[in-house]
Amino acid sequence: MGRPNGLSSPGSRPGVWNDGPVTETQPLADRSPDELAAFLTEQRAAYDALKGRGLKLDLTRGKPAPAQLDLSDALLALPASYTDANGVDTRNYGGLEGIKEIREMFAELLWVEPEQVVAGGNASLVMMRDVLTDLWLKGAVDGERPWSQEEKVTFICPVPGYDRHFTLLDWFGIDTVTVPMNDDGPDAEAVAALVASDPSIKGMWIVPTYANPSGSVCSQEVAARLASMPTAAPDFKIFWDNAYAFHHLTEDEAKSADILTLASAAGHPHRPIMFASTSKITYAGAGVAFLAASVENVQWYLKHLGAGAIGPDKVNQLRHAQFFGSPQGVRDHMVKHREIIWPKFEAVQSVLDSRLGGLGVAEWTKPTGGYFVSLDVLDGAATRVVQLAKEAGIALTPAGASFPGGNDPRDRNIRLAPTFPELDAVTEAMDAVATCVLLAAAEQLTA
Amino acid sequence: MGRPNGLSSPGSRPGVWNDGPVTETQPLADRSPDELAAFLTEQRAAYDALKGRGLKLDLTRGKPAPAQLDLSDALLALPASYTDANGVDTRNYGGLEGIKEIREMFAELLWVEPEQVVAGGNASLVMMRDVLTDLWLKGAVDGERPWSQEEKVTFICPVPGYDRHFTLLDWFGIDTVTVPMNDDGPDAEAVAALVASDPSIKGMWIVPTYANPSGSVCSQEVAARLASMPTAAPDFKIFWDNAYAFHHLTEDEAKSADILTLASAAGHPHRPIMFASTSKITYAGAGVAFLAASVENVQWYLKHLGAGAIGPDKVNQLRHAQFFGSPQGVRDHMVKHREIIWPKFEAVQSVLDSRLGGLGVAEWTKPTGGYFVSLDVLDGAATRVVQLAKEAGIALTPAGASFPGGNDPRDRNIRLAPTFPELDAVTEAMDAVATCVLLAAAEQLTA
Repeated sequence: MGRPNGLSSPGSRPGVWNDGPVTETQPLADRSPDELAAFLTEQRAAYDALKGRGLKLDLTRGKPAPAQLDLSDALLALPASYTDANGVDTRNYGGLEGIKEIREMFAELLWVEPEQVVAGGNASLVMMRDVLTDLWLKGAVDGERPWSQEEKVTFICPVPGYDRHFTLLDWFGIDTVTVPMNDDGPDAEAVAALVASDPSIKGMWIVPTYANPSGSVCSQEVAARLASMPTAAPDFKIFWDNAYAFHHLTEDEAKSADILTLASAAGHPHRPIMFASTSKITYAGAGVAFLAASVENVQWYLKHLGAGAIGPDKVNQLRHAQFFGSPQGVRDHMVKHREIIWPKFEAVQSVLDSRLGGLGVAEWTKPTGGYFVSLDVLDGAATRVVQLAKEAGIALTPAGASFPGGNDPRDRNIRLAPTFPELDAVTEAMDAVATCVLLAAAEQLTA
Repeated sequence: MGRPNGLSSPGSRPGVWNDGPVTETQPLADRSPDELAAFLTEQRAAYDALKGRGLKLDLTRGKPAPAQLDLSDALLALPASYTDANGVDTRNYGGLEGIKEIREMFAELLWVEPEQVVAGGNASLVMMRDVLTDLWLKGAVDGERPWSQEEKVTFICPVPGYDRHFTLLDWFGIDTVTVPMNDDGPDAEAVAALVASDPSIKGMWIVPTYANPSGSVCSQEVAARLASMPTAAPDFKIFWDNAYAFHHLTEDEAKSADILTLASAAGHPHRPIMFASTSKITYAGAGVAFLAASVENVQWYLKHLGAGAIGPDKVNQLRHAQFFGSPQGVRDHMVKHREIIWPKFEAVQSVLDSRLGGLGVAEWTKPTGGYFVSLDVLDGAATRVVQLAKEAGIALTPAGASFPGGNDPRDRNIRLAPTFPELDAVTEAMDAVATCVLLAAAEQLTA
């Protein structure tokens, strides 16, 4: 394992991250047995001291901090009126596709036409489940039969990835096959090879912008390859979960690849279904979710939705439209989030650099957006690190959570979510994590 | 067909409805051919005059009027805070089951325990679809297999009933069998006979209180029979859609039968699943929906919900809890609705009594709650009445809409929804409907 660095590989994006301190530290792997034994003793002492502090800290979930939620508290007294831009009384029934102005606003932000956008309830995850239900029971616009009538349905999951995506597949009994998540997005050649010959492969997940948890951004080239690759399944679907499209951590703002245009140009207009939401823009529990796709996909979605729904909460959509004012209002709002969470990400990097730099026991990402840092420890050590952290009062996402079935074959990945705790707690928790990483490494190298 | 009267049969509930005027009118069926020919000529002239007026009126859907929605406009500036009774920040993720205070409030109103209640999003219809999806793909807590693995699944539909219930069944490919909806609820003996021997019959719909469209109220006796009847399917489910539980039109407030207690006492605790919402209490499009059932059913529902959802809009739940203040606040609020819509229902009765009374060409209900009047015209005449009305500018719910597949075997039922239009428009529209009923009857009796 080389020098800890999330930005060293080709294709990574420039940020404002400074390099870590140039340490004179000798990598653990180069040390003598005696040196390692001494190091283990040191780390045991450090860990015992850590336990003695009785911490209670949590780095598990990607939740906005109260200070971030406060940014949107004007919502609590909105909307100032109840009629939308079409003159519709948002208080009453109807309007399955969502209100005009919020669809227009997010169409512009997502680079699609308003008729390609559905504005829904408070959760894009629910829209993903609805789409899977419709595919499962009714089949795709370009499909031959409902997916439930296939002998087997498989999804490609770039890893590390988002645990709730995998849970949803598991609920439907959909199989998974993994591909590596690189700095420029999923390993497109691996994906293309899989889909070319196996008609049971019906879809793939991707968080294209500031991926959960790696922070990587899907490049235009990778997106184009995914959009155009031949697939054995005629109704192959890309679940393009653009949850962090506007969630920049630096001034180097990543542009999401325009997957709908790319797919349309490649002759596969119905392949991508995009999801987004304001969950990490306004309120995590009370935002507005969006689906964007080809007009045919949108009509297909609305037809099935209409069998069991009358309309979304249009008042909340209007509340959001009035709060933002314009697409630029959304972008401006995101800058305020950045100001709150950037120092927390900086703290993560600072602690990891100073505590683990040069030792060859961990690598981690330096994301320029999103909600996570992905930490890779020594192979086989992740479960041990999480266990040590738990015993010291630090809750970490379970090892393996970023892999389907919770199974990280190398048992090395840990997802760090620094947004929710206060800055001091992030620093304290990361310092504790570093202690656990070092102890686990020392244990392993002396075993 | 006897004297028009929705209250004449045993088991109907007393209201404050006056009897219609005692007319000296001779029933059409008793008139001579010459008299009928003259009557037809008269009705044709009346209808031509009606058409000449160029009306544009709508009695189609059970939507609250703007004046009713105005009653809840304090919601627009709520909640006044964002922390629930458990100290949870409602703005953030989580809380799949809904917030404490709204569950407690509606548990009291629905006579169940808080742990038996889930507070969801803005639509009980979506919760019904979710429950059907879970039953279809996963099976019931008391089931042997997912319903999708059964050779055939059938639902009992009391008719006339709610068209969206039937649409949902059709979406899943569930068969339907109808039973009559009587003044005291579904024909329980007919239901009991069907479920006793046919294991494909997995469920039934019922709107127990002020049914859509008949307005009838399910009696304690009928509910007890449904709760206790032996069923060939071990996982038979009653979809108890209590959409109008608190929607009284008179001071004679119907009490919903306590189906969960009845079913539990009869040894079938998991049989009923109750649905309710504030859609016709606060905002039709932005209310809070509820599911209530046995604790096992609630846990089953939440387990499946959790595979594709993080939590409902808790801010909107808190907004509602603060708006109502208490269960009594809900009841008090409903009185204000009554004051707005009672005159509209009175107008419907007044026009029908004065225009159609004594002629033997129609019967209609005199509901003491809910949103609809169910009008039965001469057998075979409903489609013609709706067509005549349409040509005169009056939109009526399509004939047959209250029957599965839109198929009213006697083609006689028309659902009238008087809440949305202004009072004058209701009177005008009903006068037009009466003209159409009379013309269709004259046409039929002279054919």
